[in-house]
Amino acid sequence: MNVAIVGYGYWGNHLVRNFNNSENWNVEYVCDLDTNQLAKVSKLYPNIKTTSDFNEILSDPNISAIVISTPVHTHFELAKNGLLAGKHIWLEKPMTASVEESEELIAIAERNGLILHVDHTFIYTPAVRKIKEMLEKDELGDIHYFDSVRVNLGLFQHDVNVIWDLAPHDISILHYLSPKKVLSVRADGMAFHNFNDKKIESIAYLTVELEDNSIAHFHVNWMSPVKIRQIIIGGSKKMLVFDDMEPMAKLKIYDSGVSIQTRDDIYNALIQYRTGDMYSPAIQHYEALASECKHFYECIKLNKNTDTSGISGLYVVRILEAANKSLKNGGVPSLISY
Amino acid sequence: MNVAIVGYGYWGNHLVRNFNNSENWNVEYVCDLDTNQLAKVSKLYPNIKTTSDFNEILSDPNISAIVISTPVHTHFELAKNGLLAGKHIWLEKPMTASVEESEELIAIAERNGLILHVDHTFIYTPAVRKIKEMLEKDELGDIHYFDSVRVNLGLFQHDVNVIWDLAPHDISILHYLSPKKVLSVRADGMAFHNFNDKKIESIAYLTVELEDNSIAHFHVNWMSPVKIRQIIIGGSKKMLVFDDMEPMAKLKIYDSGVSIQTRDDIYNALIQYRTGDMYSPAIQHYEALASECKHFYECIKLNKNTDTSGISGLYVVRILEAANKSLKNGGVPSLISY
Amino acid sequence: MNVAIVGYGYWGNHLVRNFNNSENWNVEYVCDLDTNQLAKVSKLYPNIKTTSDFNEILSDPNISAIVISTPVHTHFELAKNGLLAGKHIWLEKPMTASVEESEELIAIAERNGLILHVDHTFIYTPAVRKIKEMLEKDELGDIHYFDSVRVNLGLFQHDVNVIWDLAPHDISILHYLSPKKVLSVRADGMAFHNFNDKKIESIAYLTVELEDNSIAHFHVNWMSPVKIRQIIIGGSKKMLVFDDMEPMAKLKIYDSGVSIQTRDDIYNALIQYRTGDMYSPAIQHYEALASECKHFYECIKLNKNTDTSGISGLYVVRILEAANKSLKNGGVPSLISY
Amino acid sequence: MNVAIVGYGYWGNHLVRNFNNSENWNVEYVCDLDTNQLAKVSKLYPNIKTTSDFNEILSDPNISAIVISTPVHTHFELAKNGLLAGKHIWLEKPMTASVEESEELIAIAERNGLILHVDHTFIYTPAVRKIKEMLEKDELGDIHYFDSVRVNLGLFQHDVNVIWDLAPHDISILHYLSPKKVLSVRADGMAFHNFNDKKIESIAYLTVELEDNSIAHFHVNWMSPVKIRQIIIGGSKKMLVFDDMEPMAKLKIYDSGVSIQTRDDIYNALIQYRTGDMYSPAIQHYEALASECKHFYECIKLNKNTDTSGISGLYVVRILEAANKSLKNGGVPSLISY
Repeated sequence: MNVAIVGYGYWGNHLVRNFNNSENWNVEYVCDLDTNQLAKVSKLYPNIKTTSDFNEILSDPNISAIVISTPVHTHFELAKNGLLAGKHIWLEKPMTASVEESEELIAIAERNGLILHVDHTFIYTPAVRKIKEMLEKDELGDIHYFDSVRVNLGLFQHDVNVIWDLAPHDISILHYLSPKKVLSVRADGMAFHNFNDKKIESIAYLTVELEDNSIAHFHVNWMSPVKIRQIIIGGSKKMLVFDDMEPMAKLKIYDSGVSIQTRDDIYNALIQYRTGDMYSPAIQHYEALASECKHFYECIKLNKNTDTSGISGLYVVRILEAANKSLKNGGVPSLISY
Repeated sequence: MNVAIVGYGYWGNHLVRNFNNSENWNVEYVCDLDTNQLAKVSKLYPNIKTTSDFNEILSDPNISAIVISTPVHTHFELAKNGLLAGKHIWLEKPMTASVEESEELIAIAERNGLILHVDHTFIYTPAVRKIKEMLEKDELGDIHYFDSVRVNLGLFQHDVNVIWDLAPHDISILHYLSPKKVLSVRADGMAFHNFNDKKIESIAYLTVELEDNSIAHFHVNWMSPVKIRQIIIGGSKKMLVFDDMEPMAKLKIYDSGVSIQTRDDIYNALIQYRTGDMYSPAIQHYEALASECKHFYECIKLNKNTDTSGISGLYVVRILEAANKSLKNGGVPSLISY
Repeated sequence: MNVAIVGYGYWGNHLVRNFNNSENWNVEYVCDLDTNQLAKVSKLYPNIKTTSDFNEILSDPNISAIVISTPVHTHFELAKNGLLAGKHIWLEKPMTASVEESEELIAIAERNGLILHVDHTFIYTPAVRKIKEMLEKDELGDIHYFDSVRVNLGLFQHDVNVIWDLAPHDISILHYLSPKKVLSVRADGMAFHNFNDKKIESIAYLTVELEDNSIAHFHVNWMSPVKIRQIIIGGSKKMLVFDDMEPMAKLKIYDSGVSIQTRDDIYNALIQYRTGDMYSPAIQHYEALASECKHFYECIKLNKNTDTSGISGLYVVRILEAANKSLKNGGVPSLISY
Repeated sequence: MNVAIVGYGYWGNHLVRNFNNSENWNVEYVCDLDTNQLAKVSKLYPNIKTTSDFNEILSDPNISAIVISTPVHTHFELAKNGLLAGKHIWLEKPMTASVEESEELIAIAERNGLILHVDHTFIYTPAVRKIKEMLEKDELGDIHYFDSVRVNLGLFQHDVNVIWDLAPHDISILHYLSPKKVLSVRADGMAFHNFNDKKIESIAYLTVELEDNSIAHFHVNWMSPVKIRQIIIGGSKKMLVFDDMEPMAKLKIYDSGVSIQTRDDIYNALIQYRTGDMYSPAIQHYEALASECKHFYECIKLNKNTDTSGISGLYVVRILEAANKSLKNGGVPSLISY
């Protein structure tokens, strides 16, 4: 199946490599406005056509799918035109700049029987798949809380704040693992630098209230001295720590039997939690993106939604949009209506 | 100087041991309602008098100071009576159950020329002293953010939520390190168990907005599978990580030179942060409580405030009270007025 | 049962505290040549008699057992006299300065029906008990190798080298866990400082060849910048890592399925080992020394050997003696004859 | 400059990628006996010629240098013929199967004015370069000991033991960092599996006695449940830990001031070492192999030895050979004569 990849930046590079290595795909075009970037493509992949004209791709009947890896504010326009030209679409995260745009893309794709995929790569990692498997076997019980920290001293973005940059990873994981509905979102953040006279938050805390008395919290930070990538899931049966910086034991599952202790002394009714055994399953090693390329192909063939379709993309954008609204309102919760 | 210690529970035990070992103090009484606890005292310290009658202590003219280590709702009454009887007071944290009570105790102590000390023990640890020293030398620069995580699978409290139980430690550290005024407080939390039909939060997130565009955030949790005690301080010059679970390198200070990169491409104006050298100072080993006992004695002698006087206790209670209010209001920020 | 404790240094302090807290024991005497040390005892424990005269203890018919916590070169004489006076003996590690002395003490104790116990405290820790339990259930299989690292930047000893100071801990663990006979011992070491014109090794490596094709290795070091306390046990079924510096997961057990891969290419017959799941059992928390005091009492009552009797002490001294011989011979192996 | 790469296995893959990316080199040939491997080369690099005939390379006058990445027992023959055909040689580690062979290659290269380079890649890593820099500035002082652990649960080799497989990395680092002469080598090891009726050690301990009262020790192990890559260098001024598994702080340098304490008690003259500050320098990130390709080119141009020339390769082979001899002699030290 022929694919065109639009946008050859840091991530576009990985996309081209993986689609090119795939048995299922033939990379026909790479499209970028920057001809220097196109020259790099031609050197490494002499057989791939390069172009700066997106319409050339739209009008090529051999192209089945378009991968869009451009800045977020361009996603809607490019994806919409792709869908209207009858192409399946792979969109980078976050899906679009607004809930409205995401909803429109989902509707167009559905009307035209096309696959609309969002690249929430983490959903295709062995570790997240393993967590999902454990939840499906009800090994962790009901999710009481989901606590995520994703901080690092990395590149600042000039066009979106730290929430839009880093939180989509963890929000997409929450969506994949838990079907619970989002009730409200609130966010606190702080901006320490100006970008074209615009304040852009470089540290933020996001709280998501979920139905059934559960809570999710996200700490995202561009200005941390250390890199932390950690999710703690508090289940009613067991608890899980996913530490993505740990090479040998990314997942740790803890028994934590609750035992209520009653004492005669009414001042001292306590619940004692004890830490039990810990177990760290072996995790296979493979490149998530390679697995995702294959999954995209298979879903097109079977005409079924991918594991991170527009639904997943919309869920993430809904929370991001609500977070920005809460930030503007000084931390007042944004209620989510459907 | 003679001291009486009221309340012989887990922490009272440590208090008696430290005051008893001190060169400055003579422990005259231990007072507790539970005679079994008093019997333990008599066995270990045959020379200390035991009593269940607080008035016996108040009326003993030999007693200069009273240490109050009882449940928080009893603090105000006991401390007030102690002060009115002319005794210097050492109060466990949190200082009182309300801002109003704290303010009244401060006023009484001042009127009577008595020392009112709050036991925020962390302020007397070698690690926190070292951080203070670095801030005073302006090695870290201005504090942009203060991020604290204090989570563990420990004893549930039945009378206060996790914020009142765990956050006072970190809030008192913030107060000691930064003179910035608190503008607003918001809190999110979740309660998973009932105690006498009362819901008590066992996980909570606290955001404190400070003047001069800074932010502090506290994650407190009774239901974590792992113990984390970590504070990250983002300074304008350097960044610091204080990991209290790390035996060998509790403090790590990171150089993090900012370098603004401008590219011709207007789409890619980025600020790149680089991680520089890391430095971990040697920290002396001593018991904070022993140092605090000495400090309390010296401040009484010199008639000057301790490093964690009522002012510090009030700061903490003010934030705790505002946090509870925000929790009740579904996460809406509580503005602080002075 | 009445006990006398001889030698009130760093470890004597812990011994007195634990025997004093024990339900089974009454500490009648503490004996030390240094009267300053005895004064400390009297202050903390007014009811314990102090003396500098060892004979006073020997001749007191109320004393059932003597605990000897003095420098190693004095062990033999003190223990022998104690046994001849009809007292049960608890000896600090290493048991004696030579194999000959250990053998003589064992013989005397046996002849007189007395208990001779050596304080290899690690055998009474919850972690080592747990490993023993797993070996008894054959969960690890046959022990292929036992690799121990015990290094730290600590106090130099002036009278024994680093092998005699640090290795007894790990050698006693090896003895407790594996019944395999020692075939040979070799040691390499280096001395960087003089003590009274005597060179004393402060870093050493010890290799013990065991029957049935197994090997044990010990790295002991007074001059390391970091503290490492780690034992790796390579079993034929599973492998275990015991990291005593790790507060949360001291024991980790790894599945490691062997799978032989045959390729057509005869140059590439390989065995591939894969890392499987890891499991970290919960370990109870208690003070090993308290448990050891109780065990000593019960063994006296039942007239049976303790888990670290003279047999265990002799095993350790035999290896230490052979190691020193190998050191003197420039690393040539010392064969062990029984 | 034109280069031919011989042997396209795991490492050959990395070699071709790096030489191909280099500005200095043009990869003209890849040679391998396995035509399946050659097919892979042709697919990824359509412009590179492939051949199974080594002589084709030897007789091509356009080829300046040959990279030999084949099993160690073939190194000598291939390298010798390459040198005699006037080609510069890059040899994988270990250089050859014997000291004699290494010495002969060095002599031939010298006679013909050709560069003979051994691929001890670690010498070109930023971390090892940083250690060298610190030693040159005399920040660590004299090296008292060099302790290396390189263990993992990886692929077993069928033709060489674990010493020949893993120790060359660390021995080459020792050689690069310290000019001290090797006096003797001893080794202990254990073989648990047969390969074609040949016992091959899968765990081994290597001790190297160096002049000036220093010692180096190497623990290499194919059967460990965990991956450890750690070197501790005990210097007379400071101590260094190089932990290659640590992503954020590979190098840690410790102050460790010695302070001699004299007590009145003559039995207790002790040296107390205290742990001082720790410092972890920022390490640049780049691929060592890329830097090594450039260095090889430059040394050819300047006609000077590379940092890991035949001298370095010979040093490593000398220790490996002596280690095998000691293993065969049951651990008796092999003295090194020059």
